[in-house]
Amino acid sequence: MTHNAATEHDLPPETTLEQLNVVLTTAHHAFDTTRQASPAERQNWLEAIAQALESRADELVRIAEEESHLPEGRLRGELTRTVFQLRLLGHETLRGEPLDVTIDHADPNWGMGPRPDIRRVNEPLGVVGVFGASNFPFAFSVIGGDSASALSAGCPVVHKAHDAHPRLARKTADIVVTALHNAGAPDGAFSLATGFHTGQALVSHPLIKAVAFTGSTAGGQALAARIAARDDPIPFFGEMSSTNPVFVTRHAWQRRREDILHGFIASVAQGNGQFCTKPGFLIIPAGTDLRLHADALLEGVAITDMLTPTIREAFLSSYADLQATSGVTTITDNDAGGGITLLATNAATVIHDPSILGQEMFGPASVIIEYDDDDELLEIAAVLEGQLTVAVQAENDDDIDGLLNILAGSAGRVLWNQWPTGVSVTYAQQHGGPYPATSAPATTSVGTAATTRFLRPVAYQGFPQDRLPASLRDDNPWQVRRRIDGTWEQ
Amino acid sequence: MTHNAATEHDLPPETTLEQLNVVLTTAHHAFDTTRQASPAERQNWLEAIAQALESRADELVRIAEEESHLPEGRLRGELTRTVFQLRLLGHETLRGEPLDVTIDHADPNWGMGPRPDIRRVNEPLGVVGVFGASNFPFAFSVIGGDSASALSAGCPVVHKAHDAHPRLARKTADIVVTALHNAGAPDGAFSLATGFHTGQALVSHPLIKAVAFTGSTAGGQALAARIAARDDPIPFFGEMSSTNPVFVTRHAWQRRREDILHGFIASVAQGNGQFCTKPGFLIIPAGTDLRLHADALLEGVAITDMLTPTIREAFLSSYADLQATSGVTTITDNDAGGGITLLATNAATVIHDPSILGQEMFGPASVIIEYDDDDELLEIAAVLEGQLTVAVQAENDDDIDGLLNILAGSAGRVLWNQWPTGVSVTYAQQHGGPYPATSAPATTSVGTAATTRFLRPVAYQGFPQDRLPASLRDDNPWQVRRRIDGTWEQ
Repeated sequence: MTHNAATEHDLPPETTLEQLNVVLTTAHHAFDTTRQASPAERQNWLEAIAQALESRADELVRIAEEESHLPEGRLRGELTRTVFQLRLLGHETLRGEPLDVTIDHADPNWGMGPRPDIRRVNEPLGVVGVFGASNFPFAFSVIGGDSASALSAGCPVVHKAHDAHPRLARKTADIVVTALHNAGAPDGAFSLATGFHTGQALVSHPLIKAVAFTGSTAGGQALAARIAARDDPIPFFGEMSSTNPVFVTRHAWQRRREDILHGFIASVAQGNGQFCTKPGFLIIPAGTDLRLHADALLEGVAITDMLTPTIREAFLSSYADLQATSGVTTITDNDAGGGITLLATNAATVIHDPSILGQEMFGPASVIIEYDDDDELLEIAAVLEGQLTVAVQAENDDDIDGLLNILAGSAGRVLWNQWPTGVSVTYAQQHGGPYPATSAPATTSVGTAATTRFLRPVAYQGFPQDRLPASLRDDNPWQVRRRIDGTWEQ
Repeated sequence: MTHNAATEHDLPPETTLEQLNVVLTTAHHAFDTTRQASPAERQNWLEAIAQALESRADELVRIAEEESHLPEGRLRGELTRTVFQLRLLGHETLRGEPLDVTIDHADPNWGMGPRPDIRRVNEPLGVVGVFGASNFPFAFSVIGGDSASALSAGCPVVHKAHDAHPRLARKTADIVVTALHNAGAPDGAFSLATGFHTGQALVSHPLIKAVAFTGSTAGGQALAARIAARDDPIPFFGEMSSTNPVFVTRHAWQRRREDILHGFIASVAQGNGQFCTKPGFLIIPAGTDLRLHADALLEGVAITDMLTPTIREAFLSSYADLQATSGVTTITDNDAGGGITLLATNAATVIHDPSILGQEMFGPASVIIEYDDDDELLEIAAVLEGQLTVAVQAENDDDIDGLLNILAGSAGRVLWNQWPTGVSVTYAQQHGGPYPATSAPATTSVGTAATTRFLRPVAYQGFPQDRLPASLRDDNPWQVRRRIDGTWEQ
C-alpha cells in the first residue's frame, strides 16, 4: 500500500480555541432559530443539502477516492445512501414522528386525583458535536447519519473533521454550509472544526449539549471520560467496537457449507474489511479442514489499499496479537498478497478466554471457531460482550430458540441467514447495542430513530393555547401525529 | 423533632455479598422468564401487586407513619397513587405501547438500494437495581415508579432499601414478593437488598444491567462514578437535584400578589418541603417588604417532624450556608417554631454567583429573589442549571415568550400559573431534566414513558415467521399497535 502524500499536505490547520469559541457561540445563537423552526423548514434544509450533494457528486467522489482509496462505485453508492438518508430523515421530521406529541387534558376524575393539563413534546438539546468515522467518508462523516439526525432534531452541528479525509471534509462542509445558507437556515447551523486538541475542547465546551461519535473503543472511552468530568455531564452517543460473530448450526453447515463460506468471505471482504459490521468470527462445527478450501474460497477476492497508514498499522497489530494467542492458528496469511487473512481456533479456547471474542481486527481478516457440540455454541453466546450484530446460519428444523434468546440479549441486530455488512437506512433499523458496541444501548445511529438521540421531552403544564409550542396546540398547525388522553389520533 | 428509636433498632442486617450474589443470580434466572412474558402476563403481575398493596393498606400506612413522620392522609394518598401507577403501567404494557414495534418488509425498490426484512421491538435490559427515595416511602420507594416501570418492561428488580424506612421496606417487599409468586411470576422477579456497601456492590455487579436512583446529587454522582468504572458501563437513571424556581412577572405581581404568595407558601410547605419539586426560589419584582406580610402568610402553616434526623441535619446545614451567603438576608427564621424559613436576595447577587440557584434546601425553606427589570429575569433564567421544573406566574398580556424559551431549555416541565409540587402520573408527564436534575435528560421517572428506560431496541433481520418474537409476527398475536413500512396500524 502506498502512502498518500496528499493527506498530510492538505490537512487543514487545527482550529484554534479562539476560533472554536466563535464557532460554538455562533452555533449556540443559531439554536435560537433551529429549535423554533417548523418541521417543514427543517425538512427544507435537509433537502437543500441533499440537492447540493447530488449536484456536486462527481467532485466529491473524486476527492473521496483520492483520500480513502475506496473504489468509485462504492463511493457513489455511499453518496446515494447519504442523500437518501437526509431525505428520509427530512420526511420523518415533516411527519412529526420524532416529536412524540402527547397531550393529557385536565381530568378531575383521574384515578389518583385530579389531573392538570399536561402536554409533552420532544425538543432539541442544543449544539451537537459530531465525530465522524474514517471508513464511510460520506455516510458516517461530515453530513452522515449523526449530523443529519441532529439537524433534523433542530440541533446545530459542529463536526470534528476526521484526519483520514481532510480535503473531503472541508469540501463537504463548504457545500453543506452554502446549501443551508441558501435555504434560509441561520449562520452556525453547521460548522467544521479540525484538530485532535480541538476535538477534546469541543466535548468539554459548555455550549455543547450532546456528542455523537463513531470510532474505536479507546477513542470513545476517552471522550466519555472527558464528558463525565464536565460540570454538567451531557449525553454521549458512542458507536465503538463490534466483532459481529456468525453462528453456523450443524444442519446449515451440512447442507450449505459452500454457500456459507462464500457469503462469509464476501462479507469480510466488503470495504476491505473496514466495516463496523464485518463478521469477525465464524463459528462452525469441527471437522472441516478449511486449509483445503482456502484457495478456492479466496480466489478472485481483491483487497486494495486500506483507508490510511494508521488504520493499516492498527490492523496488522491487531491480527498479529490474535495470531500469537495460544490456541489460535493461521489458515491463510494473505496480507502480503492483498488478500484475506483467516485465523482458526476452537470453542474451548474462546470459552476459556472470552476476551478473544472482543478483539476487533479492523481490516480484511476473520477468525473461524470450531465447536464440538451445541452446548459450546450456547457457551460462546453466553460470554459475548455487546455487539452491533450477531447472526445465525441455520435451518428451519434447527432447535436453536435458546441460542437466539441469548444472542438477542447481546446485540442491537440479529440476522437469520443473512450477513451483517450492509446497514439499510429504514424505520426499523437498529444500529447499536450494549457496551462496548455503543455507550447508549437504547439508541441507534442509523435509521429514522436516530433523530431522537438529540431530543428530550419537555412537558407544559397549565399553559394557555397561545403560549404553547405549535406542536401542542389543540388546532395542531403542523398536522403532526399525536396521542391525546391516551389515544393516538389518526 | 424527636428521634425515632425504632429506626435503628429495626434496621435489617446488611445483605452480605454472598447473599447479594444469590439474589442476583436468582434474579438473572428470573429474567429468562420475565423477558418472554406476554404483555398480559406482565399486566397480571402488576395487578396482583396493586391488589396486595390495597388489601394491606392499613398495616402499610401505620408502619410508614411511624418511620416517616408523614401524616396518615398524605400516606394514604401516596399509596393510592402507587397502586394507580402500577395499574396504569400495566395497562400501557398490555397495549404494547413501550414495545414501539416497527416492521419494514423487504423492499427491492427502497431508495438507497434493496431493503431486507427488518423488524424492531424494544426488549428488556435485564436485572435492574433500584435505589428509592426517603421522602415518598411508597411512590418512589420499594414498589414505586422505578420498580413498577422496570417490572412492566420485563426486568427483574433488586431494590436497595432506604435507611429512612427499613421496616416499611421489608414489609412492602414481602407483600410484593408474595403477590408476584401467587400470580405465577418467577422467583427472583423482585428482591430487597439492604446496607450501604451492598448498594455499592449492587451497581458494580456484572448481572445488573441498569440502575435507577432517586436522591441527592452527591449520592447520584457516587453511583455514576461506580458505573463508569465497570467493565461494561450500564445505563444509569439518576434523579438528583432541582430548585424549581418560579418566575413572577410584574403584571402578575401587581394583580395577584396575595394569591401568589399563598400558593407559594402552600407549595413550599407540602410534605414539610421535602419534595424534589419544592419551589426553592420565588423571583418577584423588587419593592415589596415581605417582612410586613410574613406573619399573615405563615399563619396556620404547620411543619411537623422531618423524615429522619440525617435529613434534618442536612437541611439545617444547607440553609445555614445560604443564610451566611453575602447578599442573602433572612425574612423569617422559623425553624425553632416548626415553621417555614424564608430568605431573601436580589437578582444581581444570583447573576453574580449563579451557584446560589443550585443550592437545594431539602426542607421547609425557600428564597425570595427580587428583580429590578425584566432583563434581570432573562439573565437569571439564562444562568439556571438543569431543573425538574420551572414555573411562571404570568398574565395573558405579558411579553415573556423569550423567558419561556429560555426556561424550556433548562427543565423537564414548565408550568404556567401552577405550582410544581404534585406530579401526576399520566401519559404526558415528564419528571426529568438536564443535569443535575437527572443524569439522563431524555427519560422520565414518572408517567407511562418511564418504562422505556429499561428497554432497548433489537432488530431482527430476515427471520422466518415462527422464529420471530410474538410482537413482530405478521399475525400480531399480542394485538399491539405497530408501525408497518412507515405507517402506523390502527
